[in-house]
Amino acid sequence: MQPPPARPGDPFEAIDTPALIVDLDRLNANLDMMAAHARANGYCLRPHAKTHKSPVIGRMQIQRGAVGVCVQKVSEAEIMIEGGVGDVLVSNEVASPRKLARLAQAARQARVGVCVDDASVVSALSRAASAAGAEIQVLVEIDVGQGRCGVVTPEDALVLGRQAAAASGLRLRGIQAYHGSAQHIHDIEERRRVVTDVAGIAARTRDLFLENGLACDIIGGAGTGTFTLDADLSVHTELQPGSYIFMDADYGGLPIADPKMRFEQALFVLSHVMSRPVAGRAVIDAGHKASAIDSGLPAPYGLTGVAYVNASDEHGVLEGADDALPGLGERVLLVPGHCDPTVNLHDHYVAVRGLGGPQPIVEAVWPVAARGAGF
Amino acid sequence: MQPPPARPGDPFEAIDTPALIVDLDRLNANLDMMAAHARANGYCLRPHAKTHKSPVIGRMQIQRGAVGVCVQKVSEAEIMIEGGVGDVLVSNEVASPRKLARLAQAARQARVGVCVDDASVVSALSRAASAAGAEIQVLVEIDVGQGRCGVVTPEDALVLGRQAAAASGLRLRGIQAYHGSAQHIHDIEERRRVVTDVAGIAARTRDLFLENGLACDIIGGAGTGTFTLDADLSVHTELQPGSYIFMDADYGGLPIADPKMRFEQALFVLSHVMSRPVAGRAVIDAGHKASAIDSGLPAPYGLTGVAYVNASDEHGVLEGADDALPGLGERVLLVPGHCDPTVNLHDHYVAVRGLGGPQPIVEAVWPVAARGAGF
Repeated sequence: MQPPPARPGDPFEAIDTPALIVDLDRLNANLDMMAAHARANGYCLRPHAKTHKSPVIGRMQIQRGAVGVCVQKVSEAEIMIEGGVGDVLVSNEVASPRKLARLAQAARQARVGVCVDDASVVSALSRAASAAGAEIQVLVEIDVGQGRCGVVTPEDALVLGRQAAAASGLRLRGIQAYHGSAQHIHDIEERRRVVTDVAGIAARTRDLFLENGLACDIIGGAGTGTFTLDADLSVHTELQPGSYIFMDADYGGLPIADPKMRFEQALFVLSHVMSRPVAGRAVIDAGHKASAIDSGLPAPYGLTGVAYVNASDEHGVLEGADDALPGLGERVLLVPGHCDPTVNLHDHYVAVRGLGGPQPIVEAVWPVAARGAGF
Repeated sequence: MQPPPARPGDPFEAIDTPALIVDLDRLNANLDMMAAHARANGYCLRPHAKTHKSPVIGRMQIQRGAVGVCVQKVSEAEIMIEGGVGDVLVSNEVASPRKLARLAQAARQARVGVCVDDASVVSALSRAASAAGAEIQVLVEIDVGQGRCGVVTPEDALVLGRQAAAASGLRLRGIQAYHGSAQHIHDIEERRRVVTDVAGIAARTRDLFLENGLACDIIGGAGTGTFTLDADLSVHTELQPGSYIFMDADYGGLPIADPKMRFEQALFVLSHVMSRPVAGRAVIDAGHKASAIDSGLPAPYGLTGVAYVNASDEHGVLEGADDALPGLGERVLLVPGHCDPTVNLHDHYVAVRGLGGPQPIVEAVWPVAARGAGF
């Protein structure tokens, strides 16, 4: 782990670059708005901690009423639990015996759930839970169009649901019905159509579970791009958005279905200009190692007429009219293209209060505790 | 930092996934072949440590005759020096006063060089070196077509060279003439033309330095895609390849000018199948957090007819004929699309001996000491 780029009490100007900046005022506003939406619409909120990778932020979400958090990896679950989060769903499949054994140990420390899409894994999970004397919550994942994991039909889900309900050490809770790419469909009506299909599949599976006497009190899914649409449909019971806390260039460019639910950009990469070799070009110290580009290049924040046109590992190239570009040594805030994998590049959050004001100050420095937690 | 995925002495099968695997036999072969080429062709080798981010591998390179290593960041230089590397060139611009002060302290611990492309930075660098009582080696960077940092003309380089030669605390050594994108030009004759242009600019700049009584004993540049061509031209004196030690899918697909200089793939991401939801699809636990995609998706290694078709943060989707795909729980080695930023995602190397043989074993686990070192 590298040393932090700042310390609490530092003025904004003292932060070393590149640094991962959180606007605390906007983070709090985003957290509050989502919590209020969940309360007003009567669903449980289980935000996805794969975005922030930080028990500090996970606890902020739970203090505002979230029932727990999602993670994608057993190691992330361990870190959330160690950091004081008492209810963690691995919204993903876990297959290896070693990871299942760790999951069972985690389930002795906190309420822990996991998704399943294979009968042999349900058996192995049951053995791991029984051996540890633990109870693991189980959701059967159904593929609602994502084309990744999950059983394909409600009938297949029923088979696994029956198996999980009968297995020692497991507690069947319901189904996982998440459509990742639906989050990013630009056209709202097309997004609504896809989400309606998702809800239809989820409802049919739920009904099949209930008709057969199986528990289905949790229907999990939804994300930052679809949660208001999912809430309207009232099929999902636990919504799992992650990116809303920070936002990014990808989500920031997406039309939103409910104009009242506009989250603010709260995550930035702070960089500075290390070369101004020719008119019209500024080279900054933030490339692939500072901002992930899987959903597009980062965007300069608050710089009109300036574009981030090229990234190499340690450089970002800005182009624009020369008098619009920042000068040598000047600082530039970037909006990451995709928040989750950008966070995964950094060891620390620098949490800043008053970022838009006259004297922004570093209020806290938080480790990205689950950075690199892939196991 | 996450716990390591294995311990020395573990059999290959015991390595947790996802893990960054180094084939020690191939790594050694690659290191030896490059060292022999440098000796045979009479140039100095200064491999780029931005690839491996590890003083362990940096020392292996120096033991084989390298004059030192390159890095891109002051923090990387600090980590290399702390790890026993005695000669480090920051082959990049450094602008901020704080980083220049750190560079000057590093120059008291080891021989340290840096590139410059701005007169105000030469002045600031001189002040920092003088304040620390240190001497910093200086290369004037000239843009030889990369369109990133560097002065534009040999005459501009001469101005900075004169300034650096006269400045206290600095020792002018020559020029940096690196063309990054030339490394990846597919057509060999086109690559040779670009490299020849680069050498021409470098030679004119060198001649201008020498005619004006300036030192120019170092002409730095070249990489894994062009070093044999650069060596043939005999203008560069210090060649700076990085990726040759590991290779990746991008370099592996590039035609090489000298068929004797074919490096072997020595870096892999080990993953396992966590879901096999439908015929023709296997989902593995290695996505954006395990393998960088800025130069393309990773490639399954040794699996005929199987393609890695889609990455999400924590998932990779493999497609192929069902009997060609690995089964649930089975392991898959991936060749990363781009080695440097893939290494930057992992906290540890798992160094394996006998990877192609009957009983591969974990011989060492090395921290990726400069992972995330962006300052």
